[in-house]
Amino acid sequence: MTAEDPASAFVPGPRAALAPTGRGPLDGTSFAAKDLFDVAGHPTTYGNPDWARTHPVAAATAPAILALLDAGSRLVGKTKTVELAFGLTGENIHHGTPLNPRAPDRFPGGSSCGSAAAVAAGTVDIALGSDTGGSVRIPASYCGVWGMRPSWGAVSLTGARALGPAFDTCGWFARSARLLRLAGEALLPLDTVPDSTLGPVLKAQTAWINAEPATAAAVLPAFEALEHLVNLGVAVRVEGYPGVLERTFEAFRCIQAQEAWATLGSWIAATGPSFGPGVGERFAAARDMDPGKVADARRFRLRFAQRLRAVLAGGGVMAYPTSPIPAPLLSATQAEQDAVRARTMGVTAIAGLAGLPEVSIPAGLVDGAPVGLSLVAAPGRDRALLALAERLSVELGLDA
Amino acid sequence: MTAEDPASAFVPGPRAALAPTGRGPLDGTSFAAKDLFDVAGHPTTYGNPDWARTHPVAAATAPAILALLDAGSRLVGKTKTVELAFGLTGENIHHGTPLNPRAPDRFPGGSSCGSAAAVAAGTVDIALGSDTGGSVRIPASYCGVWGMRPSWGAVSLTGARALGPAFDTCGWFARSARLLRLAGEALLPLDTVPDSTLGPVLKAQTAWINAEPATAAAVLPAFEALEHLVNLGVAVRVEGYPGVLERTFEAFRCIQAQEAWATLGSWIAATGPSFGPGVGERFAAARDMDPGKVADARRFRLRFAQRLRAVLAGGGVMAYPTSPIPAPLLSATQAEQDAVRARTMGVTAIAGLAGLPEVSIPAGLVDGAPVGLSLVAAPGRDRALLALAERLSVELGLDA
Repeated sequence: MTAEDPASAFVPGPRAALAPTGRGPLDGTSFAAKDLFDVAGHPTTYGNPDWARTHPVAAATAPAILALLDAGSRLVGKTKTVELAFGLTGENIHHGTPLNPRAPDRFPGGSSCGSAAAVAAGTVDIALGSDTGGSVRIPASYCGVWGMRPSWGAVSLTGARALGPAFDTCGWFARSARLLRLAGEALLPLDTVPDSTLGPVLKAQTAWINAEPATAAAVLPAFEALEHLVNLGVAVRVEGYPGVLERTFEAFRCIQAQEAWATLGSWIAATGPSFGPGVGERFAAARDMDPGKVADARRFRLRFAQRLRAVLAGGGVMAYPTSPIPAPLLSATQAEQDAVRARTMGVTAIAGLAGLPEVSIPAGLVDGAPVGLSLVAAPGRDRALLALAERLSVELGLDA
Repeated sequence: MTAEDPASAFVPGPRAALAPTGRGPLDGTSFAAKDLFDVAGHPTTYGNPDWARTHPVAAATAPAILALLDAGSRLVGKTKTVELAFGLTGENIHHGTPLNPRAPDRFPGGSSCGSAAAVAAGTVDIALGSDTGGSVRIPASYCGVWGMRPSWGAVSLTGARALGPAFDTCGWFARSARLLRLAGEALLPLDTVPDSTLGPVLKAQTAWINAEPATAAAVLPAFEALEHLVNLGVAVRVEGYPGVLERTFEAFRCIQAQEAWATLGSWIAATGPSFGPGVGERFAAARDMDPGKVADARRFRLRFAQRLRAVLAGGGVMAYPTSPIPAPLLSATQAEQDAVRARTMGVTAIAGLAGLPEVSIPAGLVDGAPVGLSLVAAPGRDRALLALAERLSVELGLDA
C-alpha cells in the first residue's frame, strides 16, 4: 500500500517520519499520528484541503509525539482523519477513505480512521488519535484493535487541532494490550489514586440493552472472563433510568455543537471550505444550535458527571459494548449512518460527558466484522485501567 | 476614560457589549472580558494588530462569556491583554498600557492587564482573564483586586486563544470576595470533594522568604486573620527544599516555552508579526528551547505535582504572598523587569505546575502600592476555596 492508494491509512504526500530521540519502554516500535497533530516542517491538513491551504506548515512538533519518540518509538507518518474530526464513519472524500483491513466492505470508523486502520493492518504498532465523541473508541471497535480514550485533560493536546475542547482528548491505538499500556506510560501523568486496585466490574445494563443482540453476544465471553477475573463470581449490575442514552446523546450533541462552532465557526464562516457529505451539515447544525438547549445540556452534564463519578469513586469499572453494532457497510445510506451515529453516541457520551477514561478491547466478531468491549473507570485511574486491560488480554490469550 | 485614551483598560474600537441572557446570582452586575475571548461579530485581537489582521472576526461567543450572561451579568467590553498573553507586566505598545488605578506610576501587571485595571477602576464588577504563568494572579496583586485562577481544566477555554495549554486556565477578577464567588458559581463545575471543610492553613515558608520583607509584612495581618479563622491558634508551617523556587521557575519556563512554540510558532514563523519589547525575545527563546531540558522539566513536574497534591489532599490550604514585591515602576528597565519576572514566577509556578486553584486577596500596601495574599488548595476544591476567601473577607471587613 502506498500513500497514493486512495484506501491508504496515510495522508497523501511526503511521509512525516522521525527517528526516536530516546530509549525506553517503546524501543523498537513504530507509530503513526492522526493528521491533526503537528510535525515540524509538515502541513497539518486536519483532513481538509482548504484547511491545509489556509494554515502555515507546522513550526513545532506536538508534545504527545515528542513523548513517544522520547520513549523509543519511531514515527512513520501521519494518518487520515475525518474532516475537522467531525464524524464517526471515517469517510474522507478528499483524501480517500482508509480501508478497514478487518472488514474491507465496511467503514473503518472515525474520526481517527487512518490511525486505527494502520494498526489493524500491522503497518505500525501504535497510533495517536483524538477522541471527542468516540473518535478513538469507535474505530478501535470497528477495526478490531486496542483503543484508549484517557481521562479528559490527562494527555496533552498542545500542537493538535481542537473540535470541542470540553470533550477533546488525546487517545491512542495499539496492536496489543501491552503496547497500549506502554504507550500510556509515556503519555500519562501518574494516577491520582496511586496503587489502586480496580473493582468490582459493573455490568452497565442500559448500554448492553442498547447493543444489537449479536454484538452483545459476541463480546459477552470477554466480559465474563473479566467478571471472573475481578469479581470472583459476584455479579454486579448497574442500570440507567429509562431513556438515559437518548438524554446523554442529546446533551452531548448540543454541547459539542456549541463547542465546535465556537472553535471552528470563525474559520468556516471566513473561508467557506468545501466539505464532504454530512460534515458541512453537521457544522451548519452547530451554527444554528439553540443556546437554551445548550444551557439545559450543560446543567444535565453537571449532574450526570457528578453521579457517575460517585458510582465509580471506589474503584468500580463499568463494562459494555463499545459500539452497539459493527461498522456500517460502505454502501449504507446517509440516513442509515445518521441512525447508527445517534445510537452509538448515546453510549460514547457516557465517558465523554463525565470525562472518564475508556479502553476498547477487540473482543469479538459479528458476521466476521470486529466489535469491542469497553472498560470505563473514574477520572485519574488511567494507568490502573490499562493494567487491568492487559490482565484481561493475558487471560483471554490475546497478547503474544 | 474613553476607548481612545491610551491608558484605557479597553481595546480600541467599538465596544463588544451584550445584554444578560438569563437571571441569576449575577443580576445587575457588569463584566468585561480579556480580548482573547471571542465575541460573535467582533475581532479578537489577542493584543497584537498582526494577529487581528490575519484572523477572521469571531463567528461565535466563548462559552465562559455565555455562562456569565446566563447568570445575569452584562458584558460591557473587551479588555487589553499583553500580546499573545506572553508577559507579566501588562505592557502593550500597540494598544497602550492600561493605567493601574491604584498605583498610577506602576505597571498594572499582565497579561490580563485591562481586566484587572477595569475592576480596580470600578468600571466593571467582574472581568474574565486567563492565567498561564500568573496572568490573573499577578495583575490582581498589582491592582489590589480579587483574582481567581481555577484548577487546571475546570473552566472552559473554548473560543479563547491558547498560549501554553498544559498550564492555560480561564480565571477572573472581581471587586469583592462575594462577587468572585458568585462568578465562580456560574463558571465552575461542582467540587470533586463535595461539602469539604478546608484546613489547616499552611504557611508556605519558602514563598514567604522569597518575598521582600515589606511585602511579607504588608500581607501578614490578613494571613494571621486567616490562620486564626481556620487553625484556631495552631500554627502549621511547610517548607520547600533549598532552591525549590529556582527549580519550579526553570521547569515552568522550559515547559511553557515548548507549549508556546508548539501553539503559536507556526503562525509566528509564517507571519513575522511586529512585537513590542520582550515579547519577540520570549518567543525566540521558546523556539530555541532545548528539548532535553523540557523532558527533564516534565519529569520534575510529575514528581512535584504528585507530592504537592499529597500534601493538600486532606483539605490543607497553603498561603503566601502572591507576588514577592508590588508592581514594578513604569520606569523599570527591561533587565529589572526580567529579574522580577524570574523571582515572581518561581512562586506562580507552584500552582501552575500542579494545576492547583489559587485565589489572590487584596491584602495590603507597600509604599502605597497593592500586594496580594494567595490561598492555594488541591485541584477540584475551587468552590470551597472561594467560600473560604469570602469568610476571610468578612473577617477583615473588606466586603461591603
